[in-house]
Amino acid sequence: MPSLKTIKESRTDVLIIGAGPSGLMCAVWLARCGIPFRIIDKRAGKIYAGQADGLQSRSFEIFQSFSEDQFDFVTLDKAWKASNDMMEMSFWSPNEKGVLGRKSRIPDFIPGISRFHECVIHQGKIENWLQNSIEEFSEGKVKVERPYMPVSIKIDETMKGDQDYAVEVLVKKVSDDLANPEQYGKIANGLFRQFDGDQDKFYADHVNDGNVEDFELIKAKYVLGSDGAHSWVRKQLDIEMQGESTDFIWGVVDIVPITDFPDIRSRCAIHSKDSGSMMIIPRENDICRLYIQLKEVAREEDGSEGAGADGGAKSKGRIDRSKITPESIVRQAKEIIQPFNLDATDVSWFTGYQIGQRVATGFHRNNRVFISGDACHTHSPKAGQGMNVSMQDAYNLGYKFALVCKGLAKQEILQTYELERKKVAHDLIEFDHKFSRLFSGKPMIPSAEKLEGSNEDGGVDLDEFHQVYVQGGKFASGTISDYQDSIMVNKTGAKAREGEESEGVFHPLANKVPVGRRLLSDFVLGQIDYKLLHLVDKMPSDGRFRVLIFPGDLQQFKSNWDILNKFNDALEEKDSFIKRYTPVNAFPSSVIEILTIHASTRNDIEFHDFPQFTRSIDFKGRTDYWRIFSGAGKAYDGTAVDIYKTYGIDKQAGAILIARPDTHVAQVVEFSVGGLKQVDEYFSKFMIDQRNNVLPEKDKSVNDAIRFVQPKLAV
Amino acid sequence: MPSLKTIKESRTDVLIIGAGPSGLMCAVWLARCGIPFRIIDKRAGKIYAGQADGLQSRSFEIFQSFSEDQFDFVTLDKAWKASNDMMEMSFWSPNEKGVLGRKSRIPDFIPGISRFHECVIHQGKIENWLQNSIEEFSEGKVKVERPYMPVSIKIDETMKGDQDYAVEVLVKKVSDDLANPEQYGKIANGLFRQFDGDQDKFYADHVNDGNVEDFELIKAKYVLGSDGAHSWVRKQLDIEMQGESTDFIWGVVDIVPITDFPDIRSRCAIHSKDSGSMMIIPRENDICRLYIQLKEVAREEDGSEGAGADGGAKSKGRIDRSKITPESIVRQAKEIIQPFNLDATDVSWFTGYQIGQRVATGFHRNNRVFISGDACHTHSPKAGQGMNVSMQDAYNLGYKFALVCKGLAKQEILQTYELERKKVAHDLIEFDHKFSRLFSGKPMIPSAEKLEGSNEDGGVDLDEFHQVYVQGGKFASGTISDYQDSIMVNKTGAKAREGEESEGVFHPLANKVPVGRRLLSDFVLGQIDYKLLHLVDKMPSDGRFRVLIFPGDLQQFKSNWDILNKFNDALEEKDSFIKRYTPVNAFPSSVIEILTIHASTRNDIEFHDFPQFTRSIDFKGRTDYWRIFSGAGKAYDGTAVDIYKTYGIDKQAGAILIARPDTHVAQVVEFSVGGLKQVDEYFSKFMIDQRNNVLPEKDKSVNDAIRFVQPKLAV
Repeated sequence: MPSLKTIKESRTDVLIIGAGPSGLMCAVWLARCGIPFRIIDKRAGKIYAGQADGLQSRSFEIFQSFSEDQFDFVTLDKAWKASNDMMEMSFWSPNEKGVLGRKSRIPDFIPGISRFHECVIHQGKIENWLQNSIEEFSEGKVKVERPYMPVSIKIDETMKGDQDYAVEVLVKKVSDDLANPEQYGKIANGLFRQFDGDQDKFYADHVNDGNVEDFELIKAKYVLGSDGAHSWVRKQLDIEMQGESTDFIWGVVDIVPITDFPDIRSRCAIHSKDSGSMMIIPRENDICRLYIQLKEVAREEDGSEGAGADGGAKSKGRIDRSKITPESIVRQAKEIIQPFNLDATDVSWFTGYQIGQRVATGFHRNNRVFISGDACHTHSPKAGQGMNVSMQDAYNLGYKFALVCKGLAKQEILQTYELERKKVAHDLIEFDHKFSRLFSGKPMIPSAEKLEGSNEDGGVDLDEFHQVYVQGGKFASGTISDYQDSIMVNKTGAKAREGEESEGVFHPLANKVPVGRRLLSDFVLGQIDYKLLHLVDKMPSDGRFRVLIFPGDLQQFKSNWDILNKFNDALEEKDSFIKRYTPVNAFPSSVIEILTIHASTRNDIEFHDFPQFTRSIDFKGRTDYWRIFSGAGKAYDGTAVDIYKTYGIDKQAGAILIARPDTHVAQVVEFSVGGLKQVDEYFSKFMIDQRNNVLPEKDKSVNDAIRFVQPKLAV
Repeated sequence: MPSLKTIKESRTDVLIIGAGPSGLMCAVWLARCGIPFRIIDKRAGKIYAGQADGLQSRSFEIFQSFSEDQFDFVTLDKAWKASNDMMEMSFWSPNEKGVLGRKSRIPDFIPGISRFHECVIHQGKIENWLQNSIEEFSEGKVKVERPYMPVSIKIDETMKGDQDYAVEVLVKKVSDDLANPEQYGKIANGLFRQFDGDQDKFYADHVNDGNVEDFELIKAKYVLGSDGAHSWVRKQLDIEMQGESTDFIWGVVDIVPITDFPDIRSRCAIHSKDSGSMMIIPRENDICRLYIQLKEVAREEDGSEGAGADGGAKSKGRIDRSKITPESIVRQAKEIIQPFNLDATDVSWFTGYQIGQRVATGFHRNNRVFISGDACHTHSPKAGQGMNVSMQDAYNLGYKFALVCKGLAKQEILQTYELERKKVAHDLIEFDHKFSRLFSGKPMIPSAEKLEGSNEDGGVDLDEFHQVYVQGGKFASGTISDYQDSIMVNKTGAKAREGEESEGVFHPLANKVPVGRRLLSDFVLGQIDYKLLHLVDKMPSDGRFRVLIFPGDLQQFKSNWDILNKFNDALEEKDSFIKRYTPVNAFPSSVIEILTIHASTRNDIEFHDFPQFTRSIDFKGRTDYWRIFSGAGKAYDGTAVDIYKTYGIDKQAGAILIARPDTHVAQVVEFSVGGLKQVDEYFSKFMIDQRNNVLPEKDKSVNDAIRFVQPKLAV
């Protein structure tokens, strides 16, 4: 390795190592918020087929949240078009005669849980779109740098300042040849990233070659390791993975089937009598993906253990990849689906992989270097969770990086990342464990066995499987992730309903809004244009906190106008949260945006009746028309609107909700001057006073500030 | 001019002259259907701001119809995102005291008329998307060729064959300098195309210069002149424009307004007491477009005539463009909107233009050379019709070109273009005339005058204006264009309901489907996957006719199964319309596709119960799963589905609908073997027997055929 003295050095606020869905999602946030950052990946190319395929409701919501008009962020639209949204789940298992039959069909989504539902789409497309968004948001300034491998990482613990470049990462540009090792290039349809065990060897082999100009020492304020199940970053940080010691072997293939199986275009869970289980996922075009837990696979070291107690193959060693072929996977599929026929045309991708159920013991070191995604948790692919939870990890972290790097919030907020996401990871593994056992187990044959109860020999109780699947759907959707009390979440006054602890905690003033969870969207009507829209679409992912004021029915309860007018005075005071946490020369709504949603019908009130703070004016004198809404009444197309009912807010009492930049509800307080004081207190715990911060007018960063502030006015 | 002998010659099926929305729409059809064609335009660049702005429901439907997943045709999604959909129309006029006040607010769309409604978006974006689609559909083979000008055109009348290259067009590549004359380049924000009177001079000046290699003689089977209001093609064909002899002068400006006018984000029609009228169109971002019929504009030749009787300026001469400035337009707007204030920031575009209300006497010569769009009709911009009717003209013509060029249909079908679209053009002018008079006229002040009735001196009756606006909305949406009886439309058995003649004619078997109009879409459920979708989304614009079989409730009326099974036999016969009009080695659904929409609930019936013709199998053995639907029941998300009710089809009797490639309903017949015979007869009038047509297997055209046939299987 060349001497460090001759190596070029550079600085960036955040360095992201690994450009899978998790790393890219963090990068989208940073690009959107105008933070200097870099993202490197050791792979030379992108993924063009296969890999993870389920895109869950919450992931769609997140995509939507980055989709502001003027950025023309078409990810979401494209995702919808290119994907196959699954409406239905069919359960198949042996009937009393032991012959495969349809046990039931159910909708494959939970009505009302989100305005989006699960779709299947291949990961390469998602990665492509995320990359396009990064380039778009950063105006072409940031692209994924590849192939780059990290060589060493060092945290300078003496540096304590939020803005110190306390992490040094030595990286090295790899030749394209080396970055396309066997597992990415030569095998026809690729093999799954989980096989990356080889990468240790790869790093060892290549760390020392190369010329001085291939190396670079990057000094960063913060680093994210989103570099997969075999995370190099995690190893450098000496973080352990904990969980099941055994691995399962999976075979997956994408085919266009020729079959007389009637539910081939529904998602299916098939438990065969003796041949194992299969999940069918219908995909875009006429493709179906088959997931099969393989019965027998030869292994390189340990030799075959045979089928495990639960019908699946387990191994502590490494499997012999050459034994997993599309033909072998389809062969087992044909056995499982009997008496129906199944042939495959157009095999477009296949893989075999080996996976355990484990969670990292920690998600960071010193609040400087973090890990996310597969680097934090590994689990089976059945519930379509991998890509989603990984993106959601980074969605939790990215804006916190941005707030800290902008100097708006204290470094302390980064601690909430592990607190919030580790619980989700453990819930995920628990769900996966339960689901795996039921999915892979030999089914109990109805009739006789049923009467005797579900003893172990009788096999898996499919009614239980069914139930776990349905319950799991809520979790799997990603919409109920519940973040604990912390400096960023204040659940004061909120509690769970008896017997419904899993539904979250509620404040009496908004008794249908679980505090700590993401805000469920509902319709409102634009006061200025009577347009029907989703409230959450007016809370895009641009790094801003939102204070949602629900002043009730102003037409019926005139005194509520007085409170609203008093807010105007309070916010004008020089220590109000708006004045205190917004840089001196930035727009009032650039850090914390206030939205007002009243409960009167729109035509009973005029736009200009509202106090100035609800409709601020920019430096050119242009009005921001888009922050006052009616939450009651009927849209011109007949859609009934009653967001007060949806959120459980009384139309006389009103309420105030604080939403974080990730739309998680941070606190619920009273609609009163006292309530507004509590909003002040919420922010005072972690925000940094900006009353002496004058943004440099001519500096590039001022553009960021302006962009950050008033994204609606693109003119 | 160089000698014709030395000029290069080439051939193409269709030559399109003029790449505005009309020409591009025709090109999208040809590209989609795999027809060799070229499209030229004399302008060097694209339009990046201003011009037409309203995109009507029917235009959206058309965009959607080209939007099949595998082509990733994102026009529609992008159009929705980038546009501002207008929900509301506000009417403002003087109150009893003569002070401007809100007279009423109404929804700016007609519920139920379409699943889309009007949006505003600038023409440059539409053109851009259409061009991208052409390149995508043609796999990059066809792009707009510019700047090219036509020099001469000649029809060889001795050539009678459908496939003869009977039209010779001499074209010339122009230098980029010449193609950017004043009206496109130098004036800051461009002036409207209608000023192209200058182009006669442009042609005259430049036809003779240049080198031999700049010229090309293109021999085409058919030619479309979509070259604007001053159409060169129209002049060569000696086609007259007929209509009003006077022209109106309009001023238009795109601004971000600073105002206390409360309805600035609704579409508004403002009649001021003495200062004229204005239309406000809120646009994307915070832009508003103001349309004002200018009171006084100096003219170059005839001198000012002063304000006309209807308050607008009229002129037979040419206006002096230099007198129309953003400032002068905003100045008049400020007067109109008093007592409210209005200032403009961010003027992004402006124009002034001069326009008459005229229709071409003919739309073609010899069924070889056609004109469309502004070349056929000119009118005021108020109703947001220009771009829409122009695209719809070409949408009517493009697939007919494709059917003839493919040798599937007789040249005769091209005659239906003029028949069908000339009537629409006349209706448009009539509507525009009525609307213009009421919009531009001085308003009647309520109270006193009201009692005396609406005599001429009292001014325009605003209630009448209101009424005409609402009635006009239906026409303006583009969804009720009604095509007459012809070889392509058979209204036998259909008649109008008494007193509702304007609603169209109905066949008793589908008594809510107006024959001759485009089929209104409604929900159906996929039999294979229970997916909720719009029926018309399964009838994309790919050049195919569709036979929609409504076999009724098969669960309740078992004998309807027998009819369906008999259809299978009938269609297997070698002279059935499927066999007769489909090339021998093409897929059965490649020319005429059959969709089956039953009235039973989906779970009462199994996919494999249906006869083979409803779910055909391709050359690899793959099933086409996407042609059987349930039209009754409830989707998993709770949406009620009852398309039989929407279409007025009895669930016992059933019906068969024939839909043209443009989704216009061509005929309604009985659900019986006799009805199927009538379907045979419908096609026999204009389709060409293909039973000896074997597509060349190895030829490029076979790919087109395959693409034409089975677009769903992209694998």
